[in-house]
Amino acid sequence: MESKQFSARKSTALERSTHGVGSEESVRVLLIENDPDDARRAQEAFESVSTATTIEVRTDGEAALAYLEERADGSKPAPDLVLLALDLPAVDGFEFLEAVRGDEALVRVPVLVLTDSSAADDVAESYRRAANAYLAKPSDPGEFERVASAIEQFWFRRVSLPPREF
Amino acid sequence: MESKQFSARKSTALERSTHGVGSEESVRVLLIENDPDDARRAQEAFESVSTATTIEVRTDGEAALAYLEERADGSKPAPDLVLLALDLPAVDGFEFLEAVRGDEALVRVPVLVLTDSSAADDVAESYRRAANAYLAKPSDPGEFERVASAIEQFWFRRVSLPPREF
Repeated sequence: MESKQFSARKSTALERSTHGVGSEESVRVLLIENDPDDARRAQEAFESVSTATTIEVRTDGEAALAYLEERADGSKPAPDLVLLALDLPAVDGFEFLEAVRGDEALVRVPVLVLTDSSAADDVAESYRRAANAYLAKPSDPGEFERVASAIEQFWFRRVSLPPREF
Repeated sequence: MESKQFSARKSTALERSTHGVGSEESVRVLLIENDPDDARRAQEAFESVSTATTIEVRTDGEAALAYLEERADGSKPAPDLVLLALDLPAVDGFEFLEAVRGDEALVRVPVLVLTDSSAADDVAESYRRAANAYLAKPSDPGEFERVASAIEQFWFRRVSLPPREF
């Protein structure tokens, strides 16, 4: 098979954490959540992390897809990360994943499932539909901060997020 | 659209961290790395995390695919997570991703790219090919432990990994 070249430049932690994200700018999160209490808990939890985070909430998959499609041409800021509940009206989480992964303009955005379900079938199906990770909502509402912190530590501080230009 | 039911049972942290993984068992990692120094550093780094981890190393994408395919029928233990370098002989990282995501028996396994490259094109292409996350190798070899710790904290302690039966 043909050989490909990959850039061997190593990046600093700062560059990594702000890949395509200006260091003065917030990380942009789209939260797709139908439960208003959980949406509020998640928003409050991300206010407690040290990385500046801007959260936009949509309460069903259809509205979330419309939100992403409006941003696919780069005319408005697109999210850096999506948090997705599964049990949603109109377009549910699985259908949302299928739509995003089938759309060349949206396929790259990381989608973390964050759901009440811990059923093995839901876990397996989410990964099969190319969810980037599957997290169960904490049973204790106070534990949302730990979930937000775990997401921040890995996704905002360690990972290279996709470049912002879709 | 039709409504789907999702299990609303909430899981404990222990259940989450051991989803499909017996609590006495190691998390199984397949490391695909052509650089023997980096492979050794990564192995040593995972020895320092508190979750028991068993690491299998393959040095090119073709051998890694063969390793996974031998395990796709459940006859041998499959990895819970794959760490993937991009610049590999025979079958490179992008080709590996494409093969895994196109194979119904392998599609669910989380694949984290761990690479020297911090080029935006490599980041974008990895997510487009459904890598679960993209991590740049640390410039300081001693920082491998922090990478291993970040992976452990998020993937072994917080995330529900796919059920082990492929």
